[in-house]
Amino acid sequence: MAKFNPIETLDIQLPHKHYPIIIGQGLLKDAARLRQFVMGQQVFVVTNETIAPLYLEQVKAAFAGLQCDSLVLPDGEAFKDQAHLTLIYDELLRCHHHRDTTLVALGGGVIGDLTGFAAATYQRGTGFIQLPTSLLAQVDASVGGKTAINHPQGKNMIGSFYQPDAVLIDLDTLQTLPLREFRAGLAEVIKYGLLVNGAFLTRLDLALQDGLSDNKSSLLPQIIYDCCQIKANIVQQDEREAGNRALLNLGHTIGHALEAQTQYQRWLHGEAVAIGLYCAALLSHELNGLNEASVRRVERMLKQAKLPTNIPQSIDQDELLRFIGQDKKIKNNQLRFILMRAIGDCYLDNQVTETILRTVLQQAVGEDS
Amino acid sequence: MAKFNPIETLDIQLPHKHYPIIIGQGLLKDAARLRQFVMGQQVFVVTNETIAPLYLEQVKAAFAGLQCDSLVLPDGEAFKDQAHLTLIYDELLRCHHHRDTTLVALGGGVIGDLTGFAAATYQRGTGFIQLPTSLLAQVDASVGGKTAINHPQGKNMIGSFYQPDAVLIDLDTLQTLPLREFRAGLAEVIKYGLLVNGAFLTRLDLALQDGLSDNKSSLLPQIIYDCCQIKANIVQQDEREAGNRALLNLGHTIGHALEAQTQYQRWLHGEAVAIGLYCAALLSHELNGLNEASVRRVERMLKQAKLPTNIPQSIDQDELLRFIGQDKKIKNNQLRFILMRAIGDCYLDNQVTETILRTVLQQAVGEDS
Repeated sequence: MAKFNPIETLDIQLPHKHYPIIIGQGLLKDAARLRQFVMGQQVFVVTNETIAPLYLEQVKAAFAGLQCDSLVLPDGEAFKDQAHLTLIYDELLRCHHHRDTTLVALGGGVIGDLTGFAAATYQRGTGFIQLPTSLLAQVDASVGGKTAINHPQGKNMIGSFYQPDAVLIDLDTLQTLPLREFRAGLAEVIKYGLLVNGAFLTRLDLALQDGLSDNKSSLLPQIIYDCCQIKANIVQQDEREAGNRALLNLGHTIGHALEAQTQYQRWLHGEAVAIGLYCAALLSHELNGLNEASVRRVERMLKQAKLPTNIPQSIDQDELLRFIGQDKKIKNNQLRFILMRAIGDCYLDNQVTETILRTVLQQAVGEDS
Repeated sequence: MAKFNPIETLDIQLPHKHYPIIIGQGLLKDAARLRQFVMGQQVFVVTNETIAPLYLEQVKAAFAGLQCDSLVLPDGEAFKDQAHLTLIYDELLRCHHHRDTTLVALGGGVIGDLTGFAAATYQRGTGFIQLPTSLLAQVDASVGGKTAINHPQGKNMIGSFYQPDAVLIDLDTLQTLPLREFRAGLAEVIKYGLLVNGAFLTRLDLALQDGLSDNKSSLLPQIIYDCCQIKANIVQQDEREAGNRALLNLGHTIGHALEAQTQYQRWLHGEAVAIGLYCAALLSHELNGLNEASVRRVERMLKQAKLPTNIPQSIDQDELLRFIGQDKKIKNNQLRFILMRAIGDCYLDNQVTETILRTVLQQAVGEDS
């Protein structure tokens, strides 16, 4: 395994835009580095009540000399909605931010998605820098240009594809991340393992044995880099999800439905994805014979990461099916799932019937997790 | 002058998308033509209370056999807002429209902008067909992929660039367009004349002498085609307004401010643009010596089109300046205007001071128009 350098950079090359993902320690304090991605004279930092006391002042200090305003939102997926998007617009207008301003997302996936959508749509598009502070945002949400808000009827229903000008992943921020949030991020890390298998999954297994679930594995920086690279490779081939990018939704069809059904309050996104990953394994076993050992391996990894795997008894399954029926991957009215032929061999399936789905959801029911 | 064929097509070639603008009579009844631009099994038509009784049934009939839902909004610029955008999202979700649905904008610029923004953002982007029924939408709003809603603090403040799959301009719809709306569209037509001069302006002058302001000129189809071509040429060079596309904002800096200041209720967009065009001519005269004869020519054309040119006494000029200060063309905190060195020779100016602006706005004050 390659030694992890202090600062690593991945270049994202899309037809209409190139930008760097920079991974390392101390990046939020590195004013010179941060400022090079601001094109105009105005910066607007969006963050939340948890992150603001920890990092907002140092980030604002990095933009000294520019007009730098900020907005602190409440913390949680329940606030990734139209009302809080509107707060961003209102504040941008109140502070006279123009089209050449740069929006900076300082926080986890919720802040990144919300700020990114504001950047995509304020005056038809402003500058945008991602400073992800959660593991989930670092390995997934901040990479690839998906932005969105939730609708009461479904997760990420309103959004757009909008690439940032830069993503700066400061590994130091993981020191202040609560363990529950850290573990939620591991769900997306495990997802990448199931997508690619190979050396990455071996490394992940090692890390899981080496204290990863308690944020104590020395392999973590390399794992974050690997995840960004896996996602970047897929996004560079298929920015707008016409094909293979849909594979990144492994575990998300049922995960998103569980989140929406519980008003984004019961689970962190990654926790719902963990249950979704286990259901996807069960569904793959039921439909195309993913072998039992692989199903158990998925379950074991999720449990090693101290993530939930079961659908609680209290979840109404008819209602859950209705939320699944709103999934964005639906095409020609046919629900589509990402399934596994084997670990490392995923595909977009359109053969899942309601009967099979009901059977599998029933199999996944277990103690409240 | 070339004879105008029954159906003309302009092909728009952008780096990431090609699509046709089709101009002719009877297009809304032409089911085969309309359906070829629908990729999935679902269509969602957005229109307004004025247009629905005239054309909604025939458009829905064209989509027979597909799931076709519709939403009828109130008519007017005041409704191009977040609340009505949310209505579209809610109805799309209620009717279970998926990412492969096609949104159809049947109406004027307001319906086109609002529906286009919904198409750009619902599930991160759906199909989109423009069926513009007003002159303004046919020559301007439906061409070029700008979508937006208004914010109480400014016109088109929230939006995105999103190109349609097709624009079908049915000239028959102009027969049912109220004269006031028709004339408002002529403001954008005159704008193109001021941008390009030459054969187009000569034709426009002829048409204005030939009953154009009463929708009685036989030159109208050719003029609509010319306008689309002028705009398409500019948009193809500069889709995202990094350069020359800004020239299409001639008359719009002051026009938009007047609209926002009067809550989008006093003037139709084109009427506000007409006043803005006259102000731009005065400003050009003041700042760089656009000659007096050209200023008078601009005024004469606007009056021939029966459009307003003066800022009413009742408009508070300090407040108007504040609204102008929110303009989207602002860069590095410097206000930028599109001005004319001569008719047909426009440029992006950043030399307008508040003093000059106040002088010119005062010159433009006149009887309530």
